[in-house]
Amino acid sequence: MKFAVTVEVRLLPGIADPQGATLERALPALGFDEVAGVRVGKAIRFTISAVDEQTARDRVGELCDLLLANPVMEEVGVTLERVGSVGPTGGKG
Amino acid sequence: MKFAVTVEVRLLPGIADPQGATLERALPALGFDEVAGVRVGKAIRFTISAVDEQTARDRVGELCDLLLANPVMEEVGVTLERVGSVGPTGGKG
Repeated sequence: MKFAVTVEVRLLPGIADPQGATLERALPALGFDEVAGVRVGKAIRFTISAVDEQTARDRVGELCDLLLANPVMEEVGVTLERVGSVGPTGGKG
Repeated sequence: MKFAVTVEVRLLPGIADPQGATLERALPALGFDEVAGVRVGKAIRFTISAVDEQTARDRVGELCDLLLANPVMEEVGVTLERVGSVGPTGGKG
């Protein structure tokens, strides 16, 4: 099975976000007074092959811990969606 | 009304993504051969106040065009969710 994965890496609450602060400072001059609390994170997309969804989720979790996020100052949100599902279960092999 | 907004800014297909390519090159050595097609984008979160959801969406669209994304090489995905909804409609004022 193949899954399309989106990993959102966010700074933890309380960790300073200079990029977000800079954006927010620019907003009133552009006429966007109604926008607040800007935080900038990363959105990492990829595909993963796995025997089932749980295995895929576990592997994505390992990948986040190992490479994508720094747990000291970041948190992750994972979205996983099956792709190319021709014949959902009960394969011939 | 107040809405929590997530704007995902992705590089358009075909635009080179050195950050994603670097991640992908590191994966086999870490034992993640099953991962492919890594693309790194931005996930921008903020709150916006508006009279209704459509107005909020329109304003977020303007903000993307003006400040958050470069339409020549990036595309955006907007997720909008109402927050703090005590008494949904029919206010006293």
